[in-house]
Amino acid sequence: MSNKRIVSGMRPTGKLHLGHFHGVLANWRELQENYECFFFAADWHSLTTEYDNTGGIRDSIREMVLDWLSFGVDPQRSVIFQQSLVPQHAELNLILSMITPVSWLERNPTYKEMQDNLSAKDLSTFGFLGYPVLMAADIILYKAAKVPVGHDQLPHLEITREIARRFNFLYREVFPEPAALLTETPKVLGLDGRKMSKSYGNAIFLSESAEETRKKVQSMVTDTQRVRRSDPGDPDRCVAFSLNRLYIPEDKKAEIYAGCRGAEIGCVECKKLQAEYLVETLAPFRAKREELTTQPGLVEDILAAGSAKAAAEASRTIAEVRDAIRL
Amino acid sequence: MSNKRIVSGMRPTGKLHLGHFHGVLANWRELQENYECFFFAADWHSLTTEYDNTGGIRDSIREMVLDWLSFGVDPQRSVIFQQSLVPQHAELNLILSMITPVSWLERNPTYKEMQDNLSAKDLSTFGFLGYPVLMAADIILYKAAKVPVGHDQLPHLEITREIARRFNFLYREVFPEPAALLTETPKVLGLDGRKMSKSYGNAIFLSESAEETRKKVQSMVTDTQRVRRSDPGDPDRCVAFSLNRLYIPEDKKAEIYAGCRGAEIGCVECKKLQAEYLVETLAPFRAKREELTTQPGLVEDILAAGSAKAAAEASRTIAEVRDAIRL
Repeated sequence: MSNKRIVSGMRPTGKLHLGHFHGVLANWRELQENYECFFFAADWHSLTTEYDNTGGIRDSIREMVLDWLSFGVDPQRSVIFQQSLVPQHAELNLILSMITPVSWLERNPTYKEMQDNLSAKDLSTFGFLGYPVLMAADIILYKAAKVPVGHDQLPHLEITREIARRFNFLYREVFPEPAALLTETPKVLGLDGRKMSKSYGNAIFLSESAEETRKKVQSMVTDTQRVRRSDPGDPDRCVAFSLNRLYIPEDKKAEIYAGCRGAEIGCVECKKLQAEYLVETLAPFRAKREELTTQPGLVEDILAAGSAKAAAEASRTIAEVRDAIRL
Repeated sequence: MSNKRIVSGMRPTGKLHLGHFHGVLANWRELQENYECFFFAADWHSLTTEYDNTGGIRDSIREMVLDWLSFGVDPQRSVIFQQSLVPQHAELNLILSMITPVSWLERNPTYKEMQDNLSAKDLSTFGFLGYPVLMAADIILYKAAKVPVGHDQLPHLEITREIARRFNFLYREVFPEPAALLTETPKVLGLDGRKMSKSYGNAIFLSESAEETRKKVQSMVTDTQRVRRSDPGDPDRCVAFSLNRLYIPEDKKAEIYAGCRGAEIGCVECKKLQAEYLVETLAPFRAKREELTTQPGLVEDILAAGSAKAAAEASRTIAEVRDAIRL
């Protein structure tokens, strides 16, 4: 067991956007410096909500992993794998299901919440109820010391810790209780000022062209209180700026503040300027992505090799688990 | 897919008794004549109720399989395997959990019943709720055409059929719906006149000695209305006879009826006679069992070879399942 080991997964929902970059990938990239990382495409988790719409999972995995690689998640340093290619996840999930009270799952705060949010879907399945068990299996299968989470995911991690504790209590000490590695991430707003999200149709994708990004930024609302070009505005009320400030160097920000407040620059021109910093920031990632896209079988090979590594590690844990239960 | 394939499993609860022989094994032995049979030790199922008491599972499997072999379940003709050595059961269980409504499991008639019967245990676990899903996986993983069941198990098989149908509807036709092979089995009474059951402490085991069996038969109640030796009795009211009639040849039964009704034979003597037919019937099985017991590693080898065969078959189904879901 490594006390520097981290496990983190992402559901394959297709191409990633800036929200993913700031919310997860920037963090993953940094964690690689100090931890032994296991990053996985959580395709079985996709089935908890998308069991009736699975046609796109393969493409989604490919696009998502291309984005990971482009942003510097590195298969030489981290184990990058696909959950369903490591059947030990299912095996441990089954075993943990035997010791997990249904009440722990029913009280999971996101259970009812997601059922409400996705009320158009029938989420009254056994697998959806049990997804915290699968999540626990994903994490403790590798005896992860830490799991990078946001505040909203703390209840899930708590269930994982409780399940690990219960296993250790019933059989013997096999699993460390993974600790939360709380990560502060900047809020990334989408084109319409809401949180950036693919389902809101307000996202800027890594895999789109610079031209598309420029158009999208140009379509963003600015300071709605600045009615005429000659009115002074305030970048702190500008939706476009709220996104682009993440990419604009500090001295340039000062210029924009001055220009906007002094009505020296118009919004169209200003957004054009803002977009360039974003496009410039993304340029190296997009170039890398384009280069990776030309390599046939690259993602498949990386996932196959990573999944084999993960499975070797996982099978050691399963052997210990079987021995502890005396199966 | 073979339309002559049968799957049947038994939870490892230790040494088998006459109830198991007449209820299951006699049937299994005969099915081998006309079907391709997959028989398995359902050790993961044991965890649904025995998760906090797993120390005896290994021994239970060994004793149970020795009984199977002694009674003529034949590893040359049938695939004899251990569920937890074929991780594809867990994999299919996970996938099926995603498409199974919780309500199907909650309405399972034996769910509440078993919780009530075993009220001393905490059976409010996620795995216990989901055992019909695991059972469905066990059966359809091999595309079984038929499953030998008693009337009381029909609701479980119906859930299996519904899950198979739902998978075929959501993705594509992968699974045949297994049909019930209803088996009529004689009622086997235990020493106290209740149904023979290990937990009632009223069972006669294959693995016990002839002497123990004789003692047990002698301890059985006879016709309680025959108070004195000189009173005429009735074998149809005799608990000992109700068990032993399964082993006594027809012409000898006639003698016993006459002797009892005519008060020509006393109960002690009569039970001694009855016991001999039982002991004689069991003698070849007991001899075979003793011989098998002396072969070290026999059960382990049979289970390892059978599990490898089962896994090869199972992995073909899993490949089809992954392709149908497009994982």
